[in-house]
Amino acid sequence: MAKYHEISTELIKEIVDGKYKERGKLPTEKELSLHFNTSRNTIRSAINLLTDEGYVYKVQGSGIYLRPVNFDESTNLNLIKGFSSEHQEETSKIKILDLEIIQATAEIAEELNCKIGEPLYYLKRVRFVDDEPVRVERSYYRQEIVPYLGKEIARESIYNYLTQNLKLQIGFADRKIQADYLSKDDAQLLGLAENDPALIVNEKIYLANGQIVILGEGVLHFKKISLFSSAKNFD
Amino acid sequence: MAKYHEISTELIKEIVDGKYKERGKLPTEKELSLHFNTSRNTIRSAINLLTDEGYVYKVQGSGIYLRPVNFDESTNLNLIKGFSSEHQEETSKIKILDLEIIQATAEIAEELNCKIGEPLYYLKRVRFVDDEPVRVERSYYRQEIVPYLGKEIARESIYNYLTQNLKLQIGFADRKIQADYLSKDDAQLLGLAENDPALIVNEKIYLANGQIVILGEGVLHFKKISLFSSAKNFD
Repeated sequence: MAKYHEISTELIKEIVDGKYKERGKLPTEKELSLHFNTSRNTIRSAINLLTDEGYVYKVQGSGIYLRPVNFDESTNLNLIKGFSSEHQEETSKIKILDLEIIQATAEIAEELNCKIGEPLYYLKRVRFVDDEPVRVERSYYRQEIVPYLGKEIARESIYNYLTQNLKLQIGFADRKIQADYLSKDDAQLLGLAENDPALIVNEKIYLANGQIVILGEGVLHFKKISLFSSAKNFD
Repeated sequence: MAKYHEISTELIKEIVDGKYKERGKLPTEKELSLHFNTSRNTIRSAINLLTDEGYVYKVQGSGIYLRPVNFDESTNLNLIKGFSSEHQEETSKIKILDLEIIQATAEIAEELNCKIGEPLYYLKRVRFVDDEPVRVERSYYRQEIVPYLGKEIARESIYNYLTQNLKLQIGFADRKIQADYLSKDDAQLLGLAENDPALIVNEKIYLANGQIVILGEGVLHFKKISLFSSAKNFD
């Protein structure tokens, strides 16, 4: 890892840990270069990376300010991991409701760019934080790409399993976000009433080679989960 | 504008116009370099830009595929313009419900990083597509940054006014997305029932210097509007 990349990783850790929260800004480039015992140019590269990733922004002549980022990977739409990531809350738990091999219906095959009848893992789980249900997830995985998916894996971060164990290279993710009436089933799972508002995310996570590795839907508890997104100017 | 940038702009126009929709992919690099009468390297730079901006992805040995992007600037969370942009639908109309100068309350001042009592433009408008209401918008602009905002401007793209007329340099945008019960007022404006689901976006658009130029809330018709977001792997 290049030096500036190491420094940016260290700074992200400090930002997430809340070290700069009170001041709302990072130390100056000069202070950082003394602290990390490196050149101003290296510090500048590290800051540029943090800027690109949405953690900070520079105000000329005034400093490097923290952005109001959300660090929960499961609700930050700019991050790719999505529902497959671990919650950062230590009090987060997963309950698996269904995990089985099914055959792709015409509708699912169309979404997954796969053949009708192809074997898929179907996973339905509920995520709890502080013992309260916050999200119902339904997801599909082609067995051709994910040969094995067991409950011991589905209880943890599937993203880590895909990247670290199966060595799959993730490319990008597309998500659609909607509101709708909550179904009776999902209402029961979330401790809400039928027809309450539901925040719904449909996601496709692609491998770098263009194949879809996860097709998923998340139904979120509208009082407990917000999503975050940031965009920067390309002009 | 650099040659590769011109080519990518031309290709985006063609993609948005649907030229490659049926095939689902672009011509090969070789075909593109002949068509644009330029080097393979220039074509590759143009394709890299399109990839970064989320329009296409490369599948090694197979081609350059279109991503299922949404081209409506008002619903693509990766674009900065947000509600201030024009809808691409020619049948889109705006009705202004309120436009006045108010004084920043403590709550708004906190959100806008401005002084309590500072003069702000407050704008409330409803967006119609095909004569049906799709979105209620409430937004605030500091008069210190936007000295004048009239109805003739609020009926069009405020983003274009800010960037082209006021020459403001936009930096980035942060958005929070939630679902909630629709209020009685907003329900009436959207032709829905009180307590129906509402898709709500709170956005802050920042200048490149870090000042917040737009503080806005959009309440979206849950049956008519979905939001889109894409993310790519930084690993």
